[in-house]
This record gives sequence, structure tokens and C-alpha cells, in this order.
Amino acid sequence: MIGVDLGGTKLLVGAVDSELAVHHRAHRFSRGVDQAELLDIVVDAVTEVRQALDTDVAAVGFGIPCLVDRERGVAVMAVNLPIADLPFRDVMSERLGLPVVIDNDANVAVLVEQRYGAARGARHVVMLTLGTGIGGGLVVDGEVYRGSTGAGAELGHMVVEMDGPKCQGSCPNHGCLEAVASGMALAREALRVAEAEPESGLGEALAGGREITGALVTELAHDGDRSARDVLALIGTRLGVGIANYVNIFNPEVVVIGGGVIAAGDLLLDPARATVAQRALRPSRDLVRIVPARFGAESGMLGAAVLAFEELAADHTA
Amino acid sequence: MIGVDLGGTKLLVGAVDSELAVHHRAHRFSRGVDQAELLDIVVDAVTEVRQALDTDVAAVGFGIPCLVDRERGVAVMAVNLPIADLPFRDVMSERLGLPVVIDNDANVAVLVEQRYGAARGARHVVMLTLGTGIGGGLVVDGEVYRGSTGAGAELGHMVVEMDGPKCQGSCPNHGCLEAVASGMALAREALRVAEAEPESGLGEALAGGREITGALVTELAHDGDRSARDVLALIGTRLGVGIANYVNIFNPEVVVIGGGVIAAGDLLLDPARATVAQRALRPSRDLVRIVPARFGAESGMLGAAVLAFEELAADHTA
Repeated sequence: MIGVDLGGTKLLVGAVDSELAVHHRAHRFSRGVDQAELLDIVVDAVTEVRQALDTDVAAVGFGIPCLVDRERGVAVMAVNLPIADLPFRDVMSERLGLPVVIDNDANVAVLVEQRYGAARGARHVVMLTLGTGIGGGLVVDGEVYRGSTGAGAELGHMVVEMDGPKCQGSCPNHGCLEAVASGMALAREALRVAEAEPESGLGEALAGGREITGALVTELAHDGDRSARDVLALIGTRLGVGIANYVNIFNPEVVVIGGGVIAAGDLLLDPARATVAQRALRPSRDLVRIVPARFGAESGMLGAAVLAFEELAADHTA
Repeated sequence: MIGVDLGGTKLLVGAVDSELAVHHRAHRFSRGVDQAELLDIVVDAVTEVRQALDTDVAAVGFGIPCLVDRERGVAVMAVNLPIADLPFRDVMSERLGLPVVIDNDANVAVLVEQRYGAARGARHVVMLTLGTGIGGGLVVDGEVYRGSTGAGAELGHMVVEMDGPKCQGSCPNHGCLEAVASGMALAREALRVAEAEPESGLGEALAGGREITGALVTELAHDGDRSARDVLALIGTRLGVGIANYVNIFNPEVVVIGGGVIAAGDLLLDPARATVAQRALRPSRDLVRIVPARFGAESGMLGAAVLAFEELAADHTA
């Protein structure tokens, strides 16, 4: 099976077997190209992977960071990709001569975590991916939850501070979890500390000309810097408020935290867990596990392949 | 079929046919009795309804305001009823000589709204019941959502104001939707206005010796009093923040608002709808309907009967 993580900046194509081993990978850039170029790039990368294999490919799965109409196989509202309203599934299937399945990238990420990763065996899973923003994926009774029109599980856009800061990008809301606990919020809080406390580790990094990013905060925190650890604890505590909400709403067995920010590990998760223990309701709070994702940058590609496996199996059964 | 709404203050028993018509009702008080007395009261009320019917009863459904372990048929953590950890389903089935099914009262309320009421025909439904607190019910892909251990859908206990007021009762959290938008919050805000503005309608009511309750606010608001309408608009706006969160999380077709506070009607719902239009994400916010519940005080009894119909049908199929 071939999985494709079709991002707005780059795409990753992988040949994945039923044990989730990756046999060949192809990388391409996708930023700034038009629709015809993008389709050519995808076909080229998939063809490279097919040719590297000595077995036939049954289908190709795509994870795409946008709202997907699964009935029609169309990527709706694709902000960073020139494929909006294109019948992507059918066009790609014709170009490749293979069955094609498509879904939102967060949906396929939670799918692979629930089938093979940190939430394996759990029937009810909440996943939050902390990057620039906060993405969300839900598994309900063993199946990915998409909502009535596929727009569900926007888990980063839950208000936890009614009169809080304006949320990011096209979100019109204020005080969303994304606005206060994402990678952007982490960098913003770190910059605030760096400016207010020039003698802190963050302050010295700023004075030394370094850009204050989430990755830098994590690096300094792992080196033992107090100011960086405090900022991670602040973000982790806010994250915990959001997780406590989802624990009360879903009573899940597992909450999986992925995305780049999870590089901070327990420096982020321990304050989050402590907050859930203080704020969420019994018995849900005592039962839930809050764990880092198993699959990082490859979760979209792997999840897209898992989706393709499952949909092909379902078609054969039907 | 017989449905029983087993509340901490009173119980309502009804004989309900497959068209949801109620043929006989029995009322009893349940406050302050011990376990043996409660079971006797239930048996007596169900027997009264059975004897009033000229047809056989197939089963009895119970809606109970507590955490229910449906596998074992046990009411866990029943705060206001002396039946915690009793194998209620089996004991009651033996006493009545009939099949018995039990579930949480909010779960059966959303069930009857989705099958026969304000959310008829919808596959994805969020229900909030605004009384003293805020209860919640969820329908996901046509089925009631209960979470991994039956403790899910605590929809009133979602924080919308991280550093907000302490929540009610045994909830350890701060700034839950229940803490800022329930009937208790409505009465609290109205009292604040009544004390601060003695010349307002609320102020005059307080000076006249009336107790400032949610029902009084609604009465004054329907009579056109500005201060009462403003308080309802404040609560409706906060409610809208919570509904917007659920719209982003679930992408539901319908959000149903029930409970005593919905007597305020559009004086509460219009500000909530306006807030959802401002805060929630497209396309979910444009698709969702926000409507009052169809069934009020009888939703628990009716929903318990619907549950009994469905479980009996499932048993016959299996």
C-alpha cells in the first residue's frame, strides 16, 4: 500500500506493508506550485515509489491538511494547496490507475495511533497535535469521528478563556486552546519571559541573537534552564485544562499528544497530567492515560496507508 | 412499554406506546427514603401503571441521574439516591417480573429528542439541559455516546473561563460552562443586578421580597423588563461560547437546549446563536441548527421507554 502525506510545504510518499514497515520513501516540495504542477509532482513521487517495489500496489491513501468531502472525494477549503473543489480522488485515481482514498491528515494520524501506536487497543481516543496550531483527531467506539459533514474534531478550537486572545489564522474566536497552548503560544510566552527577564536562559538566548521558537524553549528546558521549564509548565497547565475538558466530554481511555511541541515530553505532559487530576471529573480522570504520540513526522503518511488498507478490505467485504 | 424517570426528589412512571403516546402516569416522591423504601415505592408506582393498562407490558426502562454501569446494570455514584452499587437492573427485574433496562437520564433525554423530538432525523446531536446545573447528552452517528466506561458526555463540565468561578457540587473545576451559564449562574447574575440597580425590574422585585430565581428572571423578561432581558442575554452569550465549542468539536446537525431555563426561549437562544455565528468555524457554524427541546419534564420518562423499546428490539434481533 502507498501512503501520501500531502502537505502545503512538502509531500512524503511511502510504500507501507501490513506490518507498518516502510519499504521506500519519496520526498517532494509542494509550496507555491499551481494545480497542474502539483498533480504532476504527486504522480511522479508515487511512480518513483512504485518502481522501487518488487510487488504490486493495491491502492494509494492521501492525508491532506484540509476539510475533505469523503463522499465525493474532494478537498474542500484547502487553504495551502491549489486543489480546492477539484475531484481529487477521481482525478488521481485515473492518473495513477489505482484506487485512491483521501482523508484529513489529523484523521489519519489518530487512525494510525489507535491501530498501531500510543492508543493501540483503545476504543475511545482523543488526539491533539501541537504544532503552529493545534489539530485534533477523534476515535469513537473504534472508528474515526468526522462529524455530520466531515468538519468535526476541530479540537484546537475549543474556547478555554472566553475573553482570551484572538485565535490564529481564519478562526474568528477568542481564547481557543490553540490561542493559548499551541507552539505559537509557547514561542510568544517564551519571548515575553526573555524580554522581561534578561538574565534568564531565555533572556540570554534572545540577547545572543537567537530566535525564540518552541524548539529553542525545548532545547533549553532539556538542558535544565529554569525559565524555559517554567514556560513549558505554563503551556502544559493550559493544555491540561483543555485535556480535562475532553476527558469530561469523551471519557476516553487514552489522550494522545503529538506534533512538534511534544519533543518537550514530560516537561509538558507532567503539568498537563497534574491539571487533569485537579480539574476533571471522577471516574474518567482516574482511568485516562495521557501519552505522547508514537508516530511523529510520518504519522500522516503511515495513517494514509492504514486508511487505504482498511477501505480496500471494506470494499472486498461489501 | 413503561418508562420511569427516577429522580432524587420524585419519580414519574408512564405507560408509553410505540407512537410515544402516554396512556397512564404515576407520580411518587423519592426524597429522603432508604433503599428498601425506594424499591417499594418504585414497584408500587410501576404496578399502578400496569394495572391501569389493558395490555401486557414488555419491559421497563429507567432514566437515573447518575453514572450508570450498563454492562452490570448498576447505578454507580448515585449522589441523591440510595441505590449506589446496588445491582439495580437485576433486583428490579426480579421484583417486577419484567425485563429492565437502565441508563443515565441525560442519555435517555437526548435519545428521545433524536428519535422523536427536536433533533429528529439528525445523526449527530449535542444536547445541553440547563437546570440547576448543565447536563449533557450526545448522539454520534445515530447512537447515544456514553464513553469508554459510561461516564462521557459531561458536557456542562467544559471550562470556558480558565480562571473563572469554582464549579458547583462535587466538580473540582473552575469556569465550567455549568459555573457560568446554568440556572444557578442565571440566578446569581440576576441577584447581582438586582442589588446594584434597585430601580430596575429585578431591583424592584428584590425590594418587594421576591426570591431572585431563574424562573422569575424569565417571567420578568417575558413581561418586557430590560434588566431581566439583559441578564438572559449575558447567560445566552456565555452559553453560545459553549455551543460554539461543541459545534467545532462535533460538527453536529442540531444542538438541542433543554431544562427549565429554556422557558426563556429565544431571549436565551438568540444571543447564543449570534455568539455561535461570531465564534465557531465554517462550515459547521452555517449548518448547525440550535433549537429548544421538544420534551420538557417528561423527557426522562419518555426516553426511558424509548430505550426499553430499542433494547427489546435489539434482543429479538440478536
